[in-house]
Amino acid sequence: MAVRETIGADVGGTKVLVGALDAENQVGYEEREPTTGLSSDLLLDLLESAFAKAVAARPDIDGIGLGLPCTLDQARGTAISAVNLDIVDVPVRGELADRLGRPVFVDNDANVAALAEQRFGAAKGARHVVMITVGTGIGGGLIIDGEIYRGRNGAGAELGHSVIEADGPPCQGNCPGRGCVETLASGTALTREGRLAAEREPDSALGRLLAAGQEIDGAAITAAAIEGDPTARAVVELIGHRLGIALTGFANVFEPDAIVVGGGVMAAGELLLEPARRQVREHALPPMNKTPVVAAQLGNRAGMIGAATLARIELERQT
Amino acid sequence: MAVRETIGADVGGTKVLVGALDAENQVGYEEREPTTGLSSDLLLDLLESAFAKAVAARPDIDGIGLGLPCTLDQARGTAISAVNLDIVDVPVRGELADRLGRPVFVDNDANVAALAEQRFGAAKGARHVVMITVGTGIGGGLIIDGEIYRGRNGAGAELGHSVIEADGPPCQGNCPGRGCVETLASGTALTREGRLAAEREPDSALGRLLAAGQEIDGAAITAAAIEGDPTARAVVELIGHRLGIALTGFANVFEPDAIVVGGGVMAAGELLLEPARRQVREHALPPMNKTPVVAAQLGNRAGMIGAATLARIELERQT
Repeated sequence: MAVRETIGADVGGTKVLVGALDAENQVGYEEREPTTGLSSDLLLDLLESAFAKAVAARPDIDGIGLGLPCTLDQARGTAISAVNLDIVDVPVRGELADRLGRPVFVDNDANVAALAEQRFGAAKGARHVVMITVGTGIGGGLIIDGEIYRGRNGAGAELGHSVIEADGPPCQGNCPGRGCVETLASGTALTREGRLAAEREPDSALGRLLAAGQEIDGAAITAAAIEGDPTARAVVELIGHRLGIALTGFANVFEPDAIVVGGGVMAAGELLLEPARRQVREHALPPMNKTPVVAAQLGNRAGMIGAATLARIELERQT
Repeated sequence: MAVRETIGADVGGTKVLVGALDAENQVGYEEREPTTGLSSDLLLDLLESAFAKAVAARPDIDGIGLGLPCTLDQARGTAISAVNLDIVDVPVRGELADRLGRPVFVDNDANVAALAEQRFGAAKGARHVVMITVGTGIGGGLIIDGEIYRGRNGAGAELGHSVIEADGPPCQGNCPGRGCVETLASGTALTREGRLAAEREPDSALGRLLAAGQEIDGAAITAAAIEGDPTARAVVELIGHRLGIALTGFANVFEPDAIVVGGGVMAAGELLLEPARRQVREHALPPMNKTPVVAAQLGNRAGMIGAATLARIELERQT
């Protein structure tokens, strides 16, 4: 059977983005739902209602793809655990397929984002792609020989939990690691370092924000850096430098066609990316030191588009 | 055509091990040649003479496989560069095929060792395997979906050049990296840490060796650790701990069926492996924290067997 439309959904810490992708890979429906305090109990209900709305709006939906910010057991279609969300052992695939009467495919959110960037975005047509999405945490997606790499059971590609500082600070959320790049270079780390810098340097733009009682979050730090505040620039550069240390290892390990960096923290653009790229240029082995380090192109729609693409690929494989 | 015998050769810093593997994967010829001060100029002559001897001894040789401790360009069959040997841009494959009149296949030494362990050794039949060989440096081999993973041009899987200490000490040899696991946990690091410990603790077995003017090398440190000297044990444990930090990242990234640890430093056995395994158990994300971390089984023949197996696989693929 020729696959008509598929729905994709990307579940994040604050919202679910749902969209439909037609046979020409055009997005033909798009909705977002808030997900404050998402837990195992609420997840299935929320997804059921979001997908039901999409199915009602688009008559030709053949399947549903879902990107989740957690480790997965592919054989069982179960969300095992998440570092930054309260999700433990949720049988997402079977439960949603039952409730919606459509085939459902699940994968890690960064895996499907990597698939989207490799099919339609910054690494279009590349064979081996390493992608990280830098937000509250750091997600990782791997495309090997043009396909999503999942590891033994589907829980792999957790690139954010590569250790870049031996015996370093405990990682965030539910990760038992120490010195993971996620805890040193995620959006959470950006905010932490920005607040420290604001305290240290009261005369900087960040210091003045702090004195005025305004919130020093990733958006404020990024805005100050883009406006040229040296303190904010140094903070963004520090995060980029740390990302680059992890990327240097990934370049040496994968010799990929491209390393793609996405996620909310990429609002800082080249201010973040250039220090990361410089690490790879200066410290990776030749020829891996020439690995392109590029910005994601699909923005916050990458996960949704990738999830819908995953559903299409799997349905086409079945027929 | 059914492939009869293949020759494999594993080139190391001090010797080349050459062997022939028959259609039942039995080793039927084995020779070693010293390789002191191996350079680009000498490499081809040495390999030509070693292979010519093997071909003369075994009449049914259909092809030759070669494992080299360097990055490779697979398309050109060229040895690009080595961290611990003086090899730069040597057209190994074409040159040897011309001189010997037989098809030649080349790969990184740790890649072919990983292939051997996955076909016949510690990870027999596994789908995804991460292997490190801990010697003078740390070699890396990756088996993904049962096949050697090489990266874009064949230079990938340099697992020893994952960074485990941000802005750490400069890496050894020709690597431009800092804080790579190779410089912190290779045999070279073991010797360095053992000498420091001997100076620090003159009453230890290592300290007494130093006072007696004996050499404190990896073998001496390992022997002292096996005999129970607490200082030597602490040194081996430190190296194992650092290896484990890298392995924790590899477990999170690959979710492999097994992580195999080989190379000369594995003479310390569980004294080295258990602290590494403990890191993975305690600090990797579930379910990757359960990844088996096992000793290589084929010892110093893994590279040779893997190189011969590579030649067989490639010849069978061509026919």
